[in-house]
Amino acid sequence: MFSKQSVVTLDMEGVLTPEIWIEFAKKTGIEELRLTTRDIPDYDVLMQGRLKILNRENLTLSAIQDVIASLSLLDGAKDFLDKLRRDTQVIILSDTFQEFAYPLIEKMDFPTLFCHNLVVENDRIVSYKIRKAGHKKLTVAHLRALNFNVFAAGDSYNDTGMLLEANKGILFRAPKTVQTEFPKLETAETYGDLYRHFQAFQDSIEN
Amino acid sequence: MFSKQSVVTLDMEGVLTPEIWIEFAKKTGIEELRLTTRDIPDYDVLMQGRLKILNRENLTLSAIQDVIASLSLLDGAKDFLDKLRRDTQVIILSDTFQEFAYPLIEKMDFPTLFCHNLVVENDRIVSYKIRKAGHKKLTVAHLRALNFNVFAAGDSYNDTGMLLEANKGILFRAPKTVQTEFPKLETAETYGDLYRHFQAFQDSIEN
Repeated sequence: MFSKQSVVTLDMEGVLTPEIWIEFAKKTGIEELRLTTRDIPDYDVLMQGRLKILNRENLTLSAIQDVIASLSLLDGAKDFLDKLRRDTQVIILSDTFQEFAYPLIEKMDFPTLFCHNLVVENDRIVSYKIRKAGHKKLTVAHLRALNFNVFAAGDSYNDTGMLLEANKGILFRAPKTVQTEFPKLETAETYGDLYRHFQAFQDSIEN
Repeated sequence: MFSKQSVVTLDMEGVLTPEIWIEFAKKTGIEELRLTTRDIPDYDVLMQGRLKILNRENLTLSAIQDVIASLSLLDGAKDFLDKLRRDTQVIILSDTFQEFAYPLIEKMDFPTLFCHNLVVENDRIVSYKIRKAGHKKLTVAHLRALNFNVFAAGDSYNDTGMLLEANKGILFRAPKTVQTEFPKLETAETYGDLYRHFQAFQDSIEN
């Protein structure tokens, strides 16, 4: 039952779902799609390269969505999310594109998702659009301005702004490098741990 | 399928559910609970009066929630909402209390809800808390600052700020008085009409 005025913001890939590009590379056998910003630091160069590969391989958006639809949520993710949605409000904040996220969001029974989008023409991905740079952290700031207590969880560098902006931010299954660089952020490795962090947070909110 | 970067904000009572206080008064036979701000313009005086009646009648929060759980969503509301949630992101903006809304939100399969909350001790409602005054309009402003195109629908005076702040606002089954006072707002009487307004709005968004 909803009892406190809180919002939980969750990263999607790594927290609820597998990493889409990596799983997509595995499923299709296109090894070049495994490259990340660790390999090509300029995100736009990386993305333009990915789009070229998709077009070279004649992969329409529908075909890509079919592959993504064959992915499973992480073990236990659905139960964790269902429980949270009965306790409070949940918004998924992701840097993926909503067209890619859709088949996975459908498996989660349509929680609210804020992310970016693709530009699609005749089922071909021609470009992409970042709705708002740094939106994860900004969204948390806007939610706090609306007097929400925000609990956030994420696994990666692009989540740390959001985690630090939240009233409470937890690194979930984050690589050691991220944990070391942000020693002030508490960590969780299981949904049970993460849920206990959330409960302690809820209990700490004054009514 | 998600295609454009939009959010739909919906009022709850009158748009998706019946008016909670009025239905509650009918179900319990407590006629005094039918009073609204039309009868007692000072909202705090009205609410304190309501809380006194609930306590006088020995109505615990659980008992009240049981009554609310027996209410149905408006005819067609669930289908309309399900369709919208497959097209875009939906946030319900209500001036009710989340403890009252809970049984109805459960029937909607947990869309995101922003509203206010009660202060409850041992299942007794002792007070209430407005999370943020004027939050409907403010939430739309924050969503627009995050580069969302916002489509909004509501039926009442407390919705008009939100409707005017949105990129497109529709009065849904609004009383003639509200329609007359806000002639610039387009109207809809059925979910079919409202959905067509939404589709025209989506089509108008540039990618």
